[in-house]
Amino acid sequence: NKNFISLKQVSINNGFWSYYLKLIKDVMIPYQWEALNDRVPDAEPSHVIKNFKIAAGEIQGEFAGMVFQDSDLYKWLEAVSYSLIAYPDAELERTADEVIDLIAKVQQSDGYLNTYFTIKEPDKKWSNLKDCHELYCAGHLIEAAVAYYEATGKKKLLDVACRFADHIDPVFGPESHKKKGYPGHEEIELALIKLYKVTNNSRYLNLSKYFIDERGKKPLYFEIEAYNRGIKNIHNIWGELGKKYFQVHLPVREQTTAEGHAVRAVYLYSGMADVALETGDQSLIDACKRLWDNLTKKRMYVTGSIGSMSIGESLTFDYDLPNDTNYSETCASVGLVFFAHRMLQIDPDRQYSDVMERALYNTVISGMSLDGKKFFYVNPLEVWPEACEKNKVKSHVKYTRQPWFGCACCPPNIARLLTSLGKYIYSKKAKEVFVHLYVDSELKEKISESEVNIKQSTQYPWDEKIIIDIDSKKETEFTLSIRIPGWCKEAKVKVNNNEIDLDSVMEKGYAKINRRWKHDSLEIYLSMPVMRIKANPNVREDEGKVAIQRGPIVYCLEEVDNGKNLNNIVLPRNCEFEIKKDKDLNDVCVIETDAFREKYEDWNDELYKSDVKVSYEKTRVRFVPYFAWANRTPGEMEVWVREK
Amino acid sequence: NKNFISLKQVSINNGFWSYYLKLIKDVMIPYQWEALNDRVPDAEPSHVIKNFKIAAGEIQGEFAGMVFQDSDLYKWLEAVSYSLIAYPDAELERTADEVIDLIAKVQQSDGYLNTYFTIKEPDKKWSNLKDCHELYCAGHLIEAAVAYYEATGKKKLLDVACRFADHIDPVFGPESHKKKGYPGHEEIELALIKLYKVTNNSRYLNLSKYFIDERGKKPLYFEIEAYNRGIKNIHNIWGELGKKYFQVHLPVREQTTAEGHAVRAVYLYSGMADVALETGDQSLIDACKRLWDNLTKKRMYVTGSIGSMSIGESLTFDYDLPNDTNYSETCASVGLVFFAHRMLQIDPDRQYSDVMERALYNTVISGMSLDGKKFFYVNPLEVWPEACEKNKVKSHVKYTRQPWFGCACCPPNIARLLTSLGKYIYSKKAKEVFVHLYVDSELKEKISESEVNIKQSTQYPWDEKIIIDIDSKKETEFTLSIRIPGWCKEAKVKVNNNEIDLDSVMEKGYAKINRRWKHDSLEIYLSMPVMRIKANPNVREDEGKVAIQRGPIVYCLEEVDNGKNLNNIVLPRNCEFEIKKDKDLNDVCVIETDAFREKYEDWNDELYKSDVKVSYEKTRVRFVPYFAWANRTPGEMEVWVREK
Repeated sequence: NKNFISLKQVSINNGFWSYYLKLIKDVMIPYQWEALNDRVPDAEPSHVIKNFKIAAGEIQGEFAGMVFQDSDLYKWLEAVSYSLIAYPDAELERTADEVIDLIAKVQQSDGYLNTYFTIKEPDKKWSNLKDCHELYCAGHLIEAAVAYYEATGKKKLLDVACRFADHIDPVFGPESHKKKGYPGHEEIELALIKLYKVTNNSRYLNLSKYFIDERGKKPLYFEIEAYNRGIKNIHNIWGELGKKYFQVHLPVREQTTAEGHAVRAVYLYSGMADVALETGDQSLIDACKRLWDNLTKKRMYVTGSIGSMSIGESLTFDYDLPNDTNYSETCASVGLVFFAHRMLQIDPDRQYSDVMERALYNTVISGMSLDGKKFFYVNPLEVWPEACEKNKVKSHVKYTRQPWFGCACCPPNIARLLTSLGKYIYSKKAKEVFVHLYVDSELKEKISESEVNIKQSTQYPWDEKIIIDIDSKKETEFTLSIRIPGWCKEAKVKVNNNEIDLDSVMEKGYAKINRRWKHDSLEIYLSMPVMRIKANPNVREDEGKVAIQRGPIVYCLEEVDNGKNLNNIVLPRNCEFEIKKDKDLNDVCVIETDAFREKYEDWNDELYKSDVKVSYEKTRVRFVPYFAWANRTPGEMEVWVREK
Repeated sequence: NKNFISLKQVSINNGFWSYYLKLIKDVMIPYQWEALNDRVPDAEPSHVIKNFKIAAGEIQGEFAGMVFQDSDLYKWLEAVSYSLIAYPDAELERTADEVIDLIAKVQQSDGYLNTYFTIKEPDKKWSNLKDCHELYCAGHLIEAAVAYYEATGKKKLLDVACRFADHIDPVFGPESHKKKGYPGHEEIELALIKLYKVTNNSRYLNLSKYFIDERGKKPLYFEIEAYNRGIKNIHNIWGELGKKYFQVHLPVREQTTAEGHAVRAVYLYSGMADVALETGDQSLIDACKRLWDNLTKKRMYVTGSIGSMSIGESLTFDYDLPNDTNYSETCASVGLVFFAHRMLQIDPDRQYSDVMERALYNTVISGMSLDGKKFFYVNPLEVWPEACEKNKVKSHVKYTRQPWFGCACCPPNIARLLTSLGKYIYSKKAKEVFVHLYVDSELKEKISESEVNIKQSTQYPWDEKIIIDIDSKKETEFTLSIRIPGWCKEAKVKVNNNEIDLDSVMEKGYAKINRRWKHDSLEIYLSMPVMRIKANPNVREDEGKVAIQRGPIVYCLEEVDNGKNLNNIVLPRNCEFEIKKDKDLNDVCVIETDAFREKYEDWNDELYKSDVKVSYEKTRVRFVPYFAWANRTPGEMEVWVREK
């Protein structure tokens, strides 16, 4: 499929995101390498490199870590690959080559590759797809292999991945001697599509399609395999959340609501969209659109996070969006970006890029500290530190980012997404180039045999202005489709200083500018007043409250700026907002305004009082971008603020 | 101690509470008997009678149920005893006698009595006080025995209880061959004081005092006994909540905050207050007061419930009072009434009777349906039914009362408290009679050798007027101390139609009316306007909201009256309330007012919108007493309502 842009075509050298790309290269990738080698002092040991060395026969020892521990290394390798494209680094590449040699050494002669099963349960391969993450780890291996091949042209890991995929392929299928299985944790579906696209081997596409088509069909495979393992009461295999946790409650085309473990859900949907895009299967496209609608219009936080419940790290039901007990895993927002990006290729509609942007600028980067060394797995919208420590329904919610977890899914997921951000900015469709994200960047693309250079210069998301310079070797006709974000009420686009009548060129949220391009310049102004966001009246938890958003950035109040008891702060309906740059907080834009603090006269120590007089004391409050919270003195935080 | 009033002195024949007393006699006691005998069709089997029959050798079988299953029978028997005082019933008494014969048959020759250990682990007696509830069950046996003796004068069960207590007594003590133990679930402490008072045997007082004094001392007994059971890593014996769960984090006199499992906490504090009252131990009185203050001024719901967290059914920390994930167990409010009642004997201060009344009229009777057949264990202040079913942090919260649980602690606890309500209304101290609760009732008491009859006539809590007629055989001087409730801003008291200057006679919330009484009549008017209650500004969950209270009754909104999305209802600050009797809801007073419902123009299906215009549609809303909720069509409920 030609819609996707290769990472090599895009460079990001300045502006908001280049900070993150450098941070990942300079801090996260080296730090994560130390973590994978158990050399970070205060972090839980990963044991992943040790597992590979044990499985390769290089050292003695026992497997340790999660059953899916291998994937941490693969995700790191994927991020390294993308980073090498932007920042060639011979030493890092040598480290990667060495670790690839190690991975290859673990691969068994039949192609099988998984350290857990090789070390611990060599007789139990493919016997518990529901819980044991074999296909999940295979998926991450494939993604890493494709990325490393694209970055370096080196085929060793790709060959490993193909051999493993070729080993997996004949295990599964409709024939009676094959397993009618699919993964407990989806991931391989989307990975196989990447492998298909790089190898052109349609077996990989078909295997991915098989996993998706088979999922949720009766009799349920997870019950069959459990029975085969000797489990007699198959009802006991489902946990507290039942079949929905695994998205197997229905065949995928019959699923209409986004259910279960949030990361699994969006990985599945991404795979479904991939297969739909490759096959043109309308029933699958329709299913993707239904699931998208339910997920993003009924079950998503304003910060672009999903997963309202810590139990099962899971989705719950429509409009259930508690702010202080939610899970909102960083990985789930990474997966939401994956899903949005794929839906955009199916249907270039702003609703997808809007959500992609919301997730990226808010929860995805809230997942890491500004110094790149600490991470949130859970991204609450309201935090009372004492409650996180003392009320166990909030014990999963942290108010400071953590160094590295035993289950280190999120940090490498952030790294691999952001290092590949170049893929998400643009896409192409026949003679049309889409600009989905405003990122200071440069795209080199061939259109009608002409080299076209599209260069964005912008201080977005802080500044309203984006300049796009187009340079085409030859004068070339094509459509440049630029997204006018859904949050933007007033946009202006000038081509070579002539303002365009936007109404006449808008389609699904994109301004479609068709002309013969040579050396041309666009100026885009996206008006960025401070917005007061209300949640749908069905969202109980946000009643009487507003969230503050400017451009794509959602804001929050922190105790360090506004004192304790953020709950007593009330925002008047007519307040005026002042936007400032904050030098101490990485130059983000902060927002200040006059608000009120509720005061109660002579409250003393009573718990309840009748007919109390409330007075309102004027107070200056300061909002900081949600993604930047918890980078200073720890304390309370809230996104949804009472209004009056 | 002479402060306490015997249940035989008090009759309750009319008014609000007589309904409950009759309901318990006519419905709950027979229903619970059926349940104890596993004859209720839709309820989980109790197996308790079977356990006793097996332990007595009457039938064959295995123990089933919780390790503390015996206590369900004892609590039922206690309620039966109290009920027999008000409603003599030869058949019920015969049933009780038979069950007492059965209990006596289970008692071993050395006095030991516990069906679990007799049937299942006869070698493990007293080896796991932390988890195995032996002393807890013994406590309930003692309470039942004392109650049955007081009700019927029959000594058989009392003798059983004494023999068991005499068996327990030498097991515990400071001597090196004795266990320095105390119960994992407190209860026997307060029970032993009852046994002491009825037998005058000071060993029981001393044993209770020993359990209290020893609790929380280092080294911790629960670690010693675990070590003796062969557990090497004693840190593993503490659950998620640690030592606080058991109130052993500190010696009781050093405890300043109410911690851990809420029922255990208030049972302990009740026992502490009992011992303090009997011994006059000031350090223990001080500890009780500190714990009372923390519990009721920092950790109690407006409905008189405690336990903010379902995990561990437990207290959390100051001002942590979530309305929709709380536990607020009915039993904990029953225990809070016990604690308050005892504190009142130590210090007749309105703060104790106010809380006692708040718990009784709200959470205690919310624990049962108006027909006496279904029960709430958990008493939330806000319910969204779909969330109870689909968001697991609320899965303990039910929106309809349940028939009978395997762990059936609450229903018999409500029964034994309400059948003994007569004990809580009055108390006596030298030549002073206190009226703590306004209940249509009659007290017969001897003061200075004269028979005095004190008769309350009232439609309280619905009506503001209470008439108290005093009839003394001889003219007798004493002080009648009548509580002016803390919620009452305007009270008036007339003696024989002459208004008293209340200010001059008030002491700790009681109007102390000293005179020579013969045939006299008091009229009390407690003004009952509808009150808007605010929570302390530290209570995050109630920010911007009010609770409605009239007299002692806290109100709530229900979906059946007010439609879905109670969150959209906003109460204007100046609304006028109309009070009505509701014939369809057991003649309770309901409250109606004009409020607003937030409306959003053309919201469509978006999840978030900026700069929304909110309009306010006038709507008539109806509040019903919190205790009466969930007696009609199931739906949403909220106590704390937004105000504007």
